[in-house]
Amino acid sequence: MTTVAAYAAPAAKAPLERTTIERRAVGEFDVLIDIEFAGICHSDIHQAREGWGKANFPMVPGHEIAGVVREVGPGVTRFQTGDRVGVGCIVDSCRECDNCKAGLEQYCAEGPTLTYNAVGKDGQPTQGGYAQKIVVDENYVVRVPDGLSLDVAAPLLCAGITTYSPLKHWNAGPGKKVAVVGLGGLGHMGVKIAHALGAEVTVLSQSLRKKDDGLKLGADHYYATSDPKTFEELAGTFDIIINTVSAPLDFAAYLSLLRTDGTMVNLGLPEEPVRIVLQSLFGNRRSLSSSGIGGIAETQEMLDFCAEHGLGAEIELIRADEINDAYERVLASDVRYRFVIDAATI
Amino acid sequence: MTTVAAYAAPAAKAPLERTTIERRAVGEFDVLIDIEFAGICHSDIHQAREGWGKANFPMVPGHEIAGVVREVGPGVTRFQTGDRVGVGCIVDSCRECDNCKAGLEQYCAEGPTLTYNAVGKDGQPTQGGYAQKIVVDENYVVRVPDGLSLDVAAPLLCAGITTYSPLKHWNAGPGKKVAVVGLGGLGHMGVKIAHALGAEVTVLSQSLRKKDDGLKLGADHYYATSDPKTFEELAGTFDIIINTVSAPLDFAAYLSLLRTDGTMVNLGLPEEPVRIVLQSLFGNRRSLSSSGIGGIAETQEMLDFCAEHGLGAEIELIRADEINDAYERVLASDVRYRFVIDAATI
Repeated sequence: MTTVAAYAAPAAKAPLERTTIERRAVGEFDVLIDIEFAGICHSDIHQAREGWGKANFPMVPGHEIAGVVREVGPGVTRFQTGDRVGVGCIVDSCRECDNCKAGLEQYCAEGPTLTYNAVGKDGQPTQGGYAQKIVVDENYVVRVPDGLSLDVAAPLLCAGITTYSPLKHWNAGPGKKVAVVGLGGLGHMGVKIAHALGAEVTVLSQSLRKKDDGLKLGADHYYATSDPKTFEELAGTFDIIINTVSAPLDFAAYLSLLRTDGTMVNLGLPEEPVRIVLQSLFGNRRSLSSSGIGGIAETQEMLDFCAEHGLGAEIELIRADEINDAYERVLASDVRYRFVIDAATI
Repeated sequence: MTTVAAYAAPAAKAPLERTTIERRAVGEFDVLIDIEFAGICHSDIHQAREGWGKANFPMVPGHEIAGVVREVGPGVTRFQTGDRVGVGCIVDSCRECDNCKAGLEQYCAEGPTLTYNAVGKDGQPTQGGYAQKIVVDENYVVRVPDGLSLDVAAPLLCAGITTYSPLKHWNAGPGKKVAVVGLGGLGHMGVKIAHALGAEVTVLSQSLRKKDDGLKLGADHYYATSDPKTFEELAGTFDIIINTVSAPLDFAAYLSLLRTDGTMVNLGLPEEPVRIVLQSLFGNRRSLSSSGIGGIAETQEMLDFCAEHGLGAEIELIRADEINDAYERVLASDVRYRFVIDAATI
């Protein structure tokens, strides 16, 4: 066991505060990582405030983790001390179901072990990346390629893979038109990755406030969804719509923007059921789908792709004692585009 | 112009009665067909009774048409007198949009010209297959292969293609598990075609009343959806669910039956919006989609496939003066599995 400093929410909706937690001893296949940076994902806030239902406290959030390997267990073959690595939303899974075998650990039949707010195979609560160190089985650790700084790599472990995976699955690339709904933490990575994949990218945002940013990030077009003309002009345009907005949308309006065989992929999860007019799908064999994070091998592929294309997240680096303020700013959509905690300040 | 006998609904909800209609003169690219058989599709009833909104009267329904070519226009190259042919739901389209060029006339950007209850390019109302003859542009006529009787071929022009098209599009075949929801006119063809494509087929029907039929038609399994255990037992099973039921379902329950990357394809169109819990899609990258009929070339492919595999519809042949009774029996789900009008009795 190792005692490490961390920032934890002691109870639902309570501010995060500095504390210490115990990390398990480094097991045969474990990697001990000195965390250097941890991104703040909107879902950290959902969970720390029990917006998604009952949660475990005290809770150390954080599933966008980048750092350096400090120690490896005797059975570890893929990493050695000094390696630059990342850990995302998943730290274990059953490894035996069809999905795990297919590299789709995120859809593990038993449910993957999430990086925090879950229970590990040792029966202990998992605790995330707002901490100085973490111990993770090597099969759930990925390598951060040279040329990708750890600070801008951290958010790729969730925001990057969550957008990369559906873009790849639905074949974003040259000749394809991709819309990204919402230009936040996920959306800005969606734009960068879709552009790097060669697709023609359109941002659909409530207003034109971030238009300059969007175009700089790689968008070819930028429309305000508050303008009804947007929906007239873009009817039947997109092969893929990546929806990063959790608030319920007018799905019929967005589905009407899909061309034949197009798919709207929902990454956000509204807490309430949504109303869908099936006729919206009928006209052009459209699909409504969803996607969650990505598998471990695909996360490595995404990091390699980002390094090759020089893509990192746009970040605002903060000290650990700014986490609570950062949460408020995330809720106010006042971040361009991801807060990253400098773990040296924990 | 040719005057032909037909059965028409003189007004919404009025019984159909014998009348005469005018067919246009055979144009350069037209085929005049002596209709031998016309299937009764549930949508005939929807339209004759204005269940789907305002309709054109008098209305001759019928878009499952099989007959023999009697005369061809001078520009016709694909058919000659005596050919056994079929006409389905579409008798024209713009021919210039991306969908038409891709053989997806059913998704024509301008909307395809439907076989009845629409207006043709000549500005005249289209009239369907409950008639002695019909005149159709050769590009919207398909060939009924030798070995497929015209009576059992007629329903393939709607029920056959409407199930074949999504089964092919979503790759039903060996190693794939397909569920067909509802064993009616569409459902029974869905079972036959999915089985012939090599998929493992399960019927999901309200009760086990038609179980023996279902297994004879080619289903491997048959479950009652009125039994909650069905949904427990089959959770995460299917690659494709073909839903032929128009009534709103508990979509979350049906979506839970899909395995990873599975798709539920809705062929029925409830008149009201349905409630979807997006979480139902999230867990396993499931999709909710829809499909309408099929293109002309694909309809020919379907007929060739059915002939090769010895597949025709299961029919009850009726006289034209039994149409109104047949409508009532369709509404009572009292048909196994398609009524076909013997056009010689019109």
